[in-house]
Amino acid sequence: MSPLLKYISYLFYSDNTMSPKITGELLRQLRQAMKNCKYFSEPIQAYIIPSGDAHQSEYIAPCDCRREFICGFNGSAGTAIVTEQHAAMWTDGRYFLQATQQMDNNWTLMKMGLKETPSQEDWLISVLPENSKVGVDPWIIAADQWKNMSKALSSAGHSLVAVQDNLIDAVWTDRPERPSTQLRNLGLEYTGVSWQDKITALRAKMSERKITWFVATALDEIAWLFNLRGADIEYNPVFFAYTIVGVNTIRFFVDLKRLSDPAVREHLQLDSPSKPELSIQTFPYESIYTELQAICAALGPKHKVWICDKASCALTQVIPKAHRTPIPYTPLCLAKAVKNATEIQGMKMAHIKDAVALCELFTWLEKEVFSFQQKDFAGLSFPTISSVGPHGAIIHYRPLPETNRTLTVNEVYLIDSGAQYVDGTTDVTRTMHFGTPSAFEKECFTYVLKGHIAVSAAVFPNGTKGHLLDSFARAALWESGLDYLHGTGHGVGCFLNVHEGPCGISYKTFADEPLEAGMIVSDEPGYYEDGSFGIRLENVVLVVPAKPKYNYRNRGSLTFEPLTLVPIQVKMMNKELLTQKERDWVNEYHRKCREVVGAELERQGRKEALEWLIRETQPII
Amino acid sequence: MSPLLKYISYLFYSDNTMSPKITGELLRQLRQAMKNCKYFSEPIQAYIIPSGDAHQSEYIAPCDCRREFICGFNGSAGTAIVTEQHAAMWTDGRYFLQATQQMDNNWTLMKMGLKETPSQEDWLISVLPENSKVGVDPWIIAADQWKNMSKALSSAGHSLVAVQDNLIDAVWTDRPERPSTQLRNLGLEYTGVSWQDKITALRAKMSERKITWFVATALDEIAWLFNLRGADIEYNPVFFAYTIVGVNTIRFFVDLKRLSDPAVREHLQLDSPSKPELSIQTFPYESIYTELQAICAALGPKHKVWICDKASCALTQVIPKAHRTPIPYTPLCLAKAVKNATEIQGMKMAHIKDAVALCELFTWLEKEVFSFQQKDFAGLSFPTISSVGPHGAIIHYRPLPETNRTLTVNEVYLIDSGAQYVDGTTDVTRTMHFGTPSAFEKECFTYVLKGHIAVSAAVFPNGTKGHLLDSFARAALWESGLDYLHGTGHGVGCFLNVHEGPCGISYKTFADEPLEAGMIVSDEPGYYEDGSFGIRLENVVLVVPAKPKYNYRNRGSLTFEPLTLVPIQVKMMNKELLTQKERDWVNEYHRKCREVVGAELERQGRKEALEWLIRETQPII
Repeated sequence: MSPLLKYISYLFYSDNTMSPKITGELLRQLRQAMKNCKYFSEPIQAYIIPSGDAHQSEYIAPCDCRREFICGFNGSAGTAIVTEQHAAMWTDGRYFLQATQQMDNNWTLMKMGLKETPSQEDWLISVLPENSKVGVDPWIIAADQWKNMSKALSSAGHSLVAVQDNLIDAVWTDRPERPSTQLRNLGLEYTGVSWQDKITALRAKMSERKITWFVATALDEIAWLFNLRGADIEYNPVFFAYTIVGVNTIRFFVDLKRLSDPAVREHLQLDSPSKPELSIQTFPYESIYTELQAICAALGPKHKVWICDKASCALTQVIPKAHRTPIPYTPLCLAKAVKNATEIQGMKMAHIKDAVALCELFTWLEKEVFSFQQKDFAGLSFPTISSVGPHGAIIHYRPLPETNRTLTVNEVYLIDSGAQYVDGTTDVTRTMHFGTPSAFEKECFTYVLKGHIAVSAAVFPNGTKGHLLDSFARAALWESGLDYLHGTGHGVGCFLNVHEGPCGISYKTFADEPLEAGMIVSDEPGYYEDGSFGIRLENVVLVVPAKPKYNYRNRGSLTFEPLTLVPIQVKMMNKELLTQKERDWVNEYHRKCREVVGAELERQGRKEALEWLIRETQPII
Repeated sequence: MSPLLKYISYLFYSDNTMSPKITGELLRQLRQAMKNCKYFSEPIQAYIIPSGDAHQSEYIAPCDCRREFICGFNGSAGTAIVTEQHAAMWTDGRYFLQATQQMDNNWTLMKMGLKETPSQEDWLISVLPENSKVGVDPWIIAADQWKNMSKALSSAGHSLVAVQDNLIDAVWTDRPERPSTQLRNLGLEYTGVSWQDKITALRAKMSERKITWFVATALDEIAWLFNLRGADIEYNPVFFAYTIVGVNTIRFFVDLKRLSDPAVREHLQLDSPSKPELSIQTFPYESIYTELQAICAALGPKHKVWICDKASCALTQVIPKAHRTPIPYTPLCLAKAVKNATEIQGMKMAHIKDAVALCELFTWLEKEVFSFQQKDFAGLSFPTISSVGPHGAIIHYRPLPETNRTLTVNEVYLIDSGAQYVDGTTDVTRTMHFGTPSAFEKECFTYVLKGHIAVSAAVFPNGTKGHLLDSFARAALWESGLDYLHGTGHGVGCFLNVHEGPCGISYKTFADEPLEAGMIVSDEPGYYEDGSFGIRLENVVLVVPAKPKYNYRNRGSLTFEPLTLVPIQVKMMNKELLTQKERDWVNEYHRKCREVVGAELERQGRKEALEWLIRETQPII
């Protein structure tokens, strides 16, 4: 049993192992800290607890799970705010049910995206007494969020204040340590480009815009830049670090213990740099603040410093405004998003390995369900699948607690699985039924499939932003009055974060750079019937040039090529709702699954899985 | 011959009556003024000439056509910038060809929307010497544009300065007077709601947000608020005015000569107000600045003033920052966009009258083309159709000079016509061929039709913004590598501006409030083959509730109902490219045209047009 299941979501939210966290005493202590002049000159009337870390990571280490600690809700997105009288937590449609179940009565759930839900600013203004002070840790709020929040509060007579000591940490007695896992260096056979060449390309971009310093704060950008990986954060092969690149210098801030490994020292040329401008100076992780201060103190009048506008408020404000050049995406983010030939090849290999593993899993599951079905069977206890995959995957995924429930032949089964391989990152969702799906389940599945195909087969001009494709995924659902409350796709890193910017496919229009050939995104429409079933179909797809009949204004066209090659369950389709074009797409996709994954299953002698694959990829008419 | 042709565009851009304006001497004079310390303490190195007036109107009066005066280009959108060495003009894809033909070699055309085109800010920074001053008239630049431009220039060491005397006016010796046409008041039978009730509703919105003053600067909002119309600006039945509404007062700024008309005095209750808080104080148009200054001088500490963030920089900056509450859309803009039952009924009537007129025009055109065809015929000189329509239309539309060209049976004929009726505003585009269209022309027409239908028939959730529908209009074109460089639709006023906010359907995501039942927009995809032909299909459509099978989260669904009822030429369609669903849509649309417009043609005894209509609405298979 090999596949690495990242999480099995939506379907299992009703599991009763999810009970609310008791937060009465914690809130009492936090409110006391809010009045404690040890932390500030005057008490604060509200405290904001964002979900991020100092690097604005989406997934975070246990020591940074402050929002979860204070309210119990452990989804990936959400902001808690505690005032003297109230405690409220904002999250989006993916998490409404989960948050309801994980938070006790001390908390009000603020459902983002619904018309009646106030914004954090509006809510604060409505509940705060006049001239209130609202506190936040400047290291875990982004500079642009600080600015917006501060402006809104000021306009209503309140003020936003930076609280240097984190007040959650003050009441969190058993807070875990910050992780410092072993670093792993990647050779050219995986990365395609050396870190030295990446530095040179970055400096070329800096010189083009007359920039003298660049501050890198995003963990995946630093990992990508140096061709290094870590395991500090679950699911994301990154490590805690900062980097400042100057015209002739490179400063690398990391737990120095990690640099004792000879392979890493050699990789980074720490002991024998090839050229002086490629010599890396190393500093302790914590000294970023004072080093950046020192750099800023020595800036010439025309010197400009690049920093991402999503970087922490604390670090951003070290740079004097006259020298600060905030950018929505760093040049590293943009360069990383467009995969080179080596990376694309790696991603393809990773997806074949993943497909082999999933074919095995599905073959096994089907067999188990059916063998138990004979007896007086109440359900199969879902196995806790974990540990290392067979093909060099280094990140250990565990199913979340809520996945420990039973699987029966009477329900829709949704599996969202992702793995990290040294040559690439995968993310796939399939929805299947091991018994007989209802007509409504099939109808919804088919609308979701139509949306998935509409995006995957779309041809669009070069320069199109992903948000312009989002409605293609929804049109069939909308036509029947249905929808789903999440975006359609996210950027995918190559042996990096499974969610990465700057591209994606969402009705949200911020953080959306134009799609270009070489970018990799997910295509994952869904439909969720509260308390009953969840459907999602997700492939990772590569943006590739398209060659339609015409070429308007020589702009060129793009389309998608699926990297994920796992059959889509025909049993769940209402074929009458599919057009001929859609049926052709399904058949061509299944032909490719059979050809590519079938060859690999055969090579590995996995007969049962091969038979399953052949059965599941029969053409439909 | 009755229809009012607003403009006949794209198709005729190659007409040779469009010759460039000679601007060498004008630019010399402008550059002299830029150095003339009569206007400012220090010379300026660049001068920005936006296309707007002091009300940020889209269509402007001749006295405000400063950008056209200086560069020759007379399209509706464009910004000119003149430096000591360069002169450049930015416009969008609709106007690339027209601008090329209207501007001489002194000007560089900046094609907005193309990747290689620099923004105005980036271009200025690239061409200006260090520490430059860039001037602009603060009355014709919006406050938010000022802010963005000022920020970008400052970050590069330059500065943006407000030049109170307009430098174009200084060199424009024969500049026309500001118009002051007669005002016309509209009764409840047209408006559905009295101006007194509109003021009361506005004050309720103000009190909800604790606002003490509201400054109205948009001409259509003022016309809508007071149920008055004028004819100061071609195509738009508005008049030059400002209004400031307080909790108990109403100040109306307008050329006072216009208020001598007894009907207008009576309508506004100027001589006998019903209630003190509905008494209108009148002031000369020009005194807005000093009156607003006086109001602001007397503001209490908590007093807040609402002004649109698109209002002029000059007026916005009169309001002290602590009291200023800029809003993207005023409550008038939002209220005006959702039409009431009386307005919807009026819009429907207006569209029937318009359809009757167009059926007559098309019948006549077809006959003329064919009768001439027999002889040794080189082409029909297109008639200058103008003057008043038969059914109470009060705005006189003239074809633009470039439309005076010949029409033959060998080319695609595009007609975009719009009319103002007292009960509503129309805007329709049809593309037809009086001979035999080529296979490529038919193919393109059919893609455009597929896009038109995809939008018109779309079902989508309440709260959806128009930009999420834009790609539906393009998908069929994109699939063949084609596209068009303009948005898909704009809001339409009711006997008001044919282009109005805050809703629309465009790939541009700013200025886009969610669609709701009662809003009216256009649906007008197109395809333009440079120098050869232009295709556009435009209907005005009403947002109406839809009733699909399901109702996800009780959000409700919307769809569109076409108000325009003019046949779409079947001869131009490649029926094999249409799906059965699309053919059904065409047949149902033509059935409705025949039913509604046919009845009216019959009532009016217009036999020939009725025959034409019946022929053009035969069902397709």
